[in-house]
Formats: sequence, structure tokens, C-alpha cells
Amino acid sequence: MTMRSPQSQTQPEDRLRNGGIETPSPRPRIQAHFHSTVSEQKLRRFNILILVFRFASLCFSLAAAIFMFSTSSRGSNSPRWTDFDAFKFLAIANAIVTLYSLFEVGASVWEISGGSTLFPEVLQVWFDFGHDQVFAYLLLSANSAGTELSRSLREMDRCTNSNAFCIQSDISVALGFAGFFFLGLSSLLSGFRLVSFIINGSRFHL
Amino acid sequence: MTMRSPQSQTQPEDRLRNGGIETPSPRPRIQAHFHSTVSEQKLRRFNILILVFRFASLCFSLAAAIFMFSTSSRGSNSPRWTDFDAFKFLAIANAIVTLYSLFEVGASVWEISGGSTLFPEVLQVWFDFGHDQVFAYLLLSANSAGTELSRSLREMDRCTNSNAFCIQSDISVALGFAGFFFLGLSSLLSGFRLVSFIINGSRFHL
Repeated sequence: MTMRSPQSQTQPEDRLRNGGIETPSPRPRIQAHFHSTVSEQKLRRFNILILVFRFASLCFSLAAAIFMFSTSSRGSNSPRWTDFDAFKFLAIANAIVTLYSLFEVGASVWEISGGSTLFPEVLQVWFDFGHDQVFAYLLLSANSAGTELSRSLREMDRCTNSNAFCIQSDISVALGFAGFFFLGLSSLLSGFRLVSFIINGSRFHL
Repeated sequence: MTMRSPQSQTQPEDRLRNGGIETPSPRPRIQAHFHSTVSEQKLRRFNILILVFRFASLCFSLAAAIFMFSTSSRGSNSPRWTDFDAFKFLAIANAIVTLYSLFEVGASVWEISGGSTLFPEVLQVWFDFGHDQVFAYLLLSANSAGTELSRSLREMDRCTNSNAFCIQSDISVALGFAGFFFLGLSSLLSGFRLVSFIINGSRFHL
């Protein structure tokens, strides 16, 4: 009996602990379910925010590309976007960002409606962040070059004869900067999503 | 006795488990020390890599700024960098990046020699990453605008009379792009460091 007394002292504690683990009490499960629902709502709101930014980026880039491409539909004596390398760069960069944004809007809608990502999750978060970064740099570079070319054209007095072309290209540059702004915001959010994925191994814990 | 038999069956297991936790065996402590030394070595190598990139960025930005600033020391009939907004932007952006890189090289040397960061750790990692990103965008934008201005100057035949100025500004733009390249690499590494800080709460677990 003296041998067993220390063990019998620890028994109530053990029973309590084992009971806490083995007997499922209803509260944790409710909390877990509640927590998961909150996470899903947060993720949904987060995804909708990304979708809004991507859609804005798509609209502005598309408008910028159209404005630039349409300069070639004027009379043959008017300058075109293909006459200037910087405007070519701007038009093509905007076209690329438009296509990318279109794809990402599709992927985002797919995720919000279906609950799962288009690619495997780890690939998707890295793909989004990497492309956002690269295309944001590309678009900023094209916009800066386009801005400088517009300024040079005005300085060279080449805008007096073809003012419509200059105005059209200025609008295209401005729209391109708006597209860059929203792409940069998407890049911030997808970076945040990537970090939260690396930390938790899942998008569901924001 | 029939009531106690299931508990007495679980007792040896419990005792084993408690013994495993409470009795400190010497092996984990040695492993922890070994692990910490490896981490410190990795962190040191990582910090030296960041220092190299920052130093390269400092050198290229400084050279670009000097090349651009020195265009004003020529004859008064030669064009200067202050005559063109894009070159002003380029010179000032490179000067800002030079000052920032100088500060970061100092902070990096401080960290490698002393083992602790200049600012509190959480502030330092966010400060580094945020400024790297912003200044990389700034420098890329300035370089793109500078490139386009150089091209326009050649097209306008303003380089025939002042060829030295054009060559000097071209070199400045090229050096600026090299500075951007190394700043971008630093930005990648400081982003990685930020993520690893967020995950582990410390720079020491890479």
C-alpha cells in the first residue's frame, strides 16, 4: 500500500487530463467550427478585394492599350504608335497586363465560387505573387518611358500638327499608371497571401 | 478492484511519458546548441550576401549620380543635367538610393560585427523591405524615363554638337540600371528575411 500511495495521488489529475483529451466535450468543436466559418468569411472578403483590384487593373490596362492601338486608325499622315519605340513598349506592356489580369480575374472568380484554387494551392500563391511583381515593374517602366516620350514630343513641337495623337497617347499613359497602381495593390495582397500561406500551410488562416 | 483495473493498465505508459518529459536527458541540449551555431553561421552568410548586394548597389548608384552631376561642370554652351527633367529625376533618384544604400551598408556592417540590428528587430526588417521596394520602383522609373530621353535626344539630332553629354548621360543610365538590379536583389533577400522573421519571430531561424 505504501508503494501505491504516490501513484494513487497522481490518479485524479491523470483522470482529469485523460478525460479532457479523450472525452469529447461539445465546446471545442463548436469553437473550431465557428473559427473555421470566420476564417472562410475573412478569406472570401479578402478574395473579393483582390478580385476588385484585378478587375480595375484589367479595365485600366485594356483602356490604355485600346487608346494606344487606336492611334493607327487615323489618317496616314498622322503619327502612329508604331512610329515610336516607347509607345510600342507601352502598348505591348498594357496588352500583356490585360491578358494576365483577365486570367487572374478568371482564377479569382473560380476560387470564390468553387472554394478551391485553379492550380494547386502552393503553385497558385507563388505564381500570383511572382507575376504581379514582374508585371508591375514592366508596366511602371513602360509608363515612365511613355511619359518621357510624350514630354519630348511636346518639346520638339511635333504636337502642333498632330495634337489629337499627343492627347490620345497622354491619356493612354495616364490609364497605364492607373493600371500600375491597381496591379501594385494586387501585388501587396498576393504577397500577404503568400506569407500567410507559408506560415500556416493554407490560405484559410488569415 | 474491477473499477481500478483500467487505470492501473494505463499507469506504466503514463509514467514512461512523464519521465520522458520531466527528466532532462543531455542530448537535446547539445543538439540545440549545435542547431543554434548552424543557424548563426547561416545568418552570417546571409547577412554578408545582403551586404555585398547593398555595397554593389551603393557603388553603381553613386557612379551614376556622379556621372550625371558632372555634366554641369563642362562649358556653358554644353547642355547640363538641369536642362532636362528626366535627367534631374535620374540624378536625384540615384542620389537618394546612394544615401539609402550607404545607411544600409552601415546597418549591415553593424549587424554582422555586433550581432544585433541597429533598430529593434521588427522595425529593422520592415524598414529594410519597405524602403527596398519603394526605392527599386523609384530607380526603375527614373532609369526608364532617362533611357527614353537619351533616345529622343539622339533622334532630335541634339547629340551631334554635344556628343560628350549624350555619352555621359547614357553611361549614367546604364549604371543606374545596374544599381536597380542589385537593389532588386537586396529587396528579394530582405523580403525573404521579413517572411522568415514573421514565421519564426526571430532572424536566427533561416
